[in-house]
Amino acid sequence: MSSPERDFVSAHLDDLHADLDAWLRIPSISADPAHAPDVAASAEWLAAALRRTGFPVVEVWETAGAPAVYAEWSSADDGAPVALVYGHHDVQPVDPLELWEHPPFEPARVEGADGPELHARGAIDDKGNVAMHLLGMRAHLAATGRDTPAVIVKVLVEGEEESGSPHFAALLRERADRLRCDVVVVSDTGMAAPDVPSAVVAMRGLADAEITLRGPAVDLHSGSFGGGVPNPLHAMATLLASLHDEHGRVTLPGFYDRVRQLTDRERALMARVPFDEAAWLAGPAASRLATGEEGYSTLERIGARPTAEVNGMWGGYTGPGHKTIIPAEAHAKITFRLVADQRPADLADQVRGWVAANLPAGIQADVHVPAGGVSPCASDLDSPAMAALLAAIGQANDRDPADVLFTREGGSGPEADLVDVLGAPLVFLGAGLPTDRIHSPNERVLLPMLYRGAEAVAHLWRELASVPLPLR
Amino acid sequence: MSSPERDFVSAHLDDLHADLDAWLRIPSISADPAHAPDVAASAEWLAAALRRTGFPVVEVWETAGAPAVYAEWSSADDGAPVALVYGHHDVQPVDPLELWEHPPFEPARVEGADGPELHARGAIDDKGNVAMHLLGMRAHLAATGRDTPAVIVKVLVEGEEESGSPHFAALLRERADRLRCDVVVVSDTGMAAPDVPSAVVAMRGLADAEITLRGPAVDLHSGSFGGGVPNPLHAMATLLASLHDEHGRVTLPGFYDRVRQLTDRERALMARVPFDEAAWLAGPAASRLATGEEGYSTLERIGARPTAEVNGMWGGYTGPGHKTIIPAEAHAKITFRLVADQRPADLADQVRGWVAANLPAGIQADVHVPAGGVSPCASDLDSPAMAALLAAIGQANDRDPADVLFTREGGSGPEADLVDVLGAPLVFLGAGLPTDRIHSPNERVLLPMLYRGAEAVAHLWRELASVPLPLR
Repeated sequence: MSSPERDFVSAHLDDLHADLDAWLRIPSISADPAHAPDVAASAEWLAAALRRTGFPVVEVWETAGAPAVYAEWSSADDGAPVALVYGHHDVQPVDPLELWEHPPFEPARVEGADGPELHARGAIDDKGNVAMHLLGMRAHLAATGRDTPAVIVKVLVEGEEESGSPHFAALLRERADRLRCDVVVVSDTGMAAPDVPSAVVAMRGLADAEITLRGPAVDLHSGSFGGGVPNPLHAMATLLASLHDEHGRVTLPGFYDRVRQLTDRERALMARVPFDEAAWLAGPAASRLATGEEGYSTLERIGARPTAEVNGMWGGYTGPGHKTIIPAEAHAKITFRLVADQRPADLADQVRGWVAANLPAGIQADVHVPAGGVSPCASDLDSPAMAALLAAIGQANDRDPADVLFTREGGSGPEADLVDVLGAPLVFLGAGLPTDRIHSPNERVLLPMLYRGAEAVAHLWRELASVPLPLR
Repeated sequence: MSSPERDFVSAHLDDLHADLDAWLRIPSISADPAHAPDVAASAEWLAAALRRTGFPVVEVWETAGAPAVYAEWSSADDGAPVALVYGHHDVQPVDPLELWEHPPFEPARVEGADGPELHARGAIDDKGNVAMHLLGMRAHLAATGRDTPAVIVKVLVEGEEESGSPHFAALLRERADRLRCDVVVVSDTGMAAPDVPSAVVAMRGLADAEITLRGPAVDLHSGSFGGGVPNPLHAMATLLASLHDEHGRVTLPGFYDRVRQLTDRERALMARVPFDEAAWLAGPAASRLATGEEGYSTLERIGARPTAEVNGMWGGYTGPGHKTIIPAEAHAKITFRLVADQRPADLADQVRGWVAANLPAGIQADVHVPAGGVSPCASDLDSPAMAALLAAIGQANDRDPADVLFTREGGSGPEADLVDVLGAPLVFLGAGLPTDRIHSPNERVLLPMLYRGAEAVAHLWRELASVPLPLR
C-alpha cells in the first residue's frame, strides 16, 4: 500500500546507506578501553547526523563512562505528547575475527535469500535501528508537510549498552527533567521474521553470579593425594549439575516465587508467532533438540520464562598434555534471565541458599553476586501507545494492526531503567531479525527490514499524535 | 648395631656431602629446553662420579631427548646375580622461586627437628637417592674386602623422568641386552617416616583422557537461546558429576574388573604403617576431611586403589565481569591412577563407554585417550629379592627384617617399563620421606636417611648374593 511516507523513504535510501556506511566504520566497542576514542567519535558522528536531520537541540552528554547523545525536536502542536527514542551507539567486540567473511568495520553489501543485506558489526545492533530514525523523521515531516514533528521527539542514544550500561541509570536520574516523556520507543530489538511484522512486549531481566570453590591450599599431586581429599573441580561439577532439576527448572530456593505467570491470552498470542523450531535449532544453535523447562514451548522458554545459564567454568590445568594435579580452586560464572515480577536484588540470597544446599563436604565456597542487575520489563498490550505502534507497523508492512504479532525478547537491557526512572510506558520498534547474528561474527541487517522500519517511524509519530492521552 | 658397612659410611660422609654439593648445583631441569645443557652436564658429572667410584664401565647414552648414564661393575663370583639400579638425574622446575628459603641450586644445610637436612632441588628426587649408591658401593667393597661387588651391579640413571620419561621405554628396548638383570632396584622413592624403615611395594599406573563437549556452532547469546538449547557447560558438569558414584567409586564401565584386590595380609601390613591422617590433611591438602572410596582407609585409597581425578576443566567466558553466552564447547582433562592388574590400554573403551552412558542429549563428545599411559607395578612380598631388601633395610636401621613395613606409592613412573621390557622383578630402596617437599619449593633430604640408605645399599649387594636364585 503506497503512502507518502513510503514514497519518501524509497526515494532516499541512498541517504540511509551513506549514513550507515560512515557510522559503521567507527569501531565503537565500549567493552575495550582502547576503543574509547572510537566510542567518542561515534557519539560525535551521531550528533552531527541528528543536526543534519534537523533536530534543533543536539547534545553529547558525558557520563562517568562513554558519552550518550541527546536530541530533541519540539512540536508546533499544543499538548503534543512526548516520545523518547532509546538506542545505543556502541557495539559488541568482534572476536573471533577470523570467522568474519568481511572485515567487521568495513560494511559489505551481500545479496541474501531474503534480499540485500549489509554486513558489519553494529549493522543492526544498534546503529541500524538508530539510523532508521534519521530517515524516518525526515519521511514523517515530508509526508505530513510539517516543519515540526506531530509529537515532541526526544532521542537518547547511550554508549555503554554492550558493556551493561553501568552509568545509564545515573544519567537518567541526573537528566530526568529533560527526558520527561509520555512513552519510550525502544529501538534495539526486532521482529519475528522478514514477513512477520511484530512488536516486542517484554524483555527479560538479568542477574549474575560468580562462584569460587576452594579445596587444597595449593595444587596437589594427584598421585599422592588423589582419591583421598575433595577435588574442587568435582565439587563444581556436582554443584552446577544441581542448577536444574529433572524438569528443567532452576533449583534456586524461591527463584519462581515472584514470577508473573503467563495468562491464557498471552500464551495464545505467543502461539500465533510463527516459529520454525527446526530452522532455529539448525542455525547458530546447531542443536538437534530443544531443551528446557518442561511444560513450555521453546518460544516461551526463551522469552517468557526465567532461566539460568553457566557462561563460564574453569579450574586446574588447561594446557597441552596432562598435569596430574588436584587444583586448589574451581570457578564458574552464571547469569540468570528474569521475567516480570522477579527482582535482581533477590538473587544474592537465592544463589547463596542454592550453593549452601548443594556444596559437597570439605569445600569452601565464595559466592559473589554483584549488586544491580537488570530488571525485567513488560508492555501493556492494550495501551493507546501500543495501538499507535501496531498501526504504524501495520501500515509499513501492509497489514492490519490486529495482524501485528507480539513477541518477547529473551535478552536484557537498560530498558527497565527507563521505566523505573522516567515512569513512562515502553513500546518497541526495531528492524532486527533473530537470524541477524548480533554479538557474533558476520552480524548483518536485512536492508528491507530497515526501510520498513524507517517508514514505521514516520507513521508512528503521526499515529501517536492521534491517540488519546495518557498513552499508557 | 655396628657393622663394617656402617663404619665405612660414617667415616666417609664428607665424600657424600661433597658429591651432592657439586651435583645439586647443576640445574638439570628436563622440562625446560633452556636447561638442556645443564641436563647434559649433570649426566657427565654422574659419569665421572661413577668412574671415580670404580665402575669399570661407564657410558653416557644419548636418547632422542636427554642423555641417560649407564654403568656396570661385574662380579668376580661365578653365577652372581645381576642387579640393575634405576634412578634419574633430572629435576623438577623450581617455580615459584620466591617461596624458596634458599636458592634451589645452592645446597643449604639446615638443622631440622629430625636432624640435619640438605635443601636443594633434587636433594632427594632423585640425586640424593642416586648419590647414596656411590658411597654404598664403596662401603660394600670395603666392608667385604672385595675388589668386585658380590653381585653384578648395573646402574641406569635417566634424564627425563620429570618430563614423563618419553624416550625411556625405547631406550630399554634398544639396550635390552646390556640391561639384562635378575632384579631392578628402584631408588626414587622413600620410607614412611624417619624412624619407620619401610619398602615401597607398588606404584600406581596412569592413564589420561581429554574430553571436549560441543553444543552450538558458535557461542550463543544467552538472552536469545538461554533455556532453549543444551549448554555444553551444563553437560560437562552433569557428565563429571557422574564420574564417581555415591560410594566414591569410579563409574567407568569395567574400571574395577581387573583390579587385584588387596589380601587380608596386605591390608594388615598397610595398617601397620604409621599414618597421621590429621597431620596429612592439615598439610598442603588443607582439608577438613578425608574423602574417597567407601570401605578403604586413606592410605589404601591413595596407594592401593584406583582413582579418577579431574585435573582441569574449562569453557566459556573466564574474564572479568560477565558475558552472557552459551559457549560452543566445554573441556575437561582427567587422569586415572591404576593399580595391578589394570591395563592403561583398557581405559580408552572405558572412558568412551562412560561418556556415552552419561552424556546429556543434544551434546556431541570428542574423547581423546592417548595411547601409552603408565602401567601399575607391584613387588612380590615373598621373593628372595624382597627378603634381601628387607634384610638390608633392617640392618641399616637396627631392626628385624620382619619389622620393615610395606608402603605403596600413589604416584606413577617409568618403573613399569622396566618390568615390561626387562621382565625383571622390582624392589624399591629409597631414602625419601613424605615430608621432603619433592616437586615443591624447599625440597630437602634428611641426611641421616641418606646415610642409612648408603649403608642399606652396601648390605643389599651382600645379601642379594646370598639368597637363592631366581630372585623373583
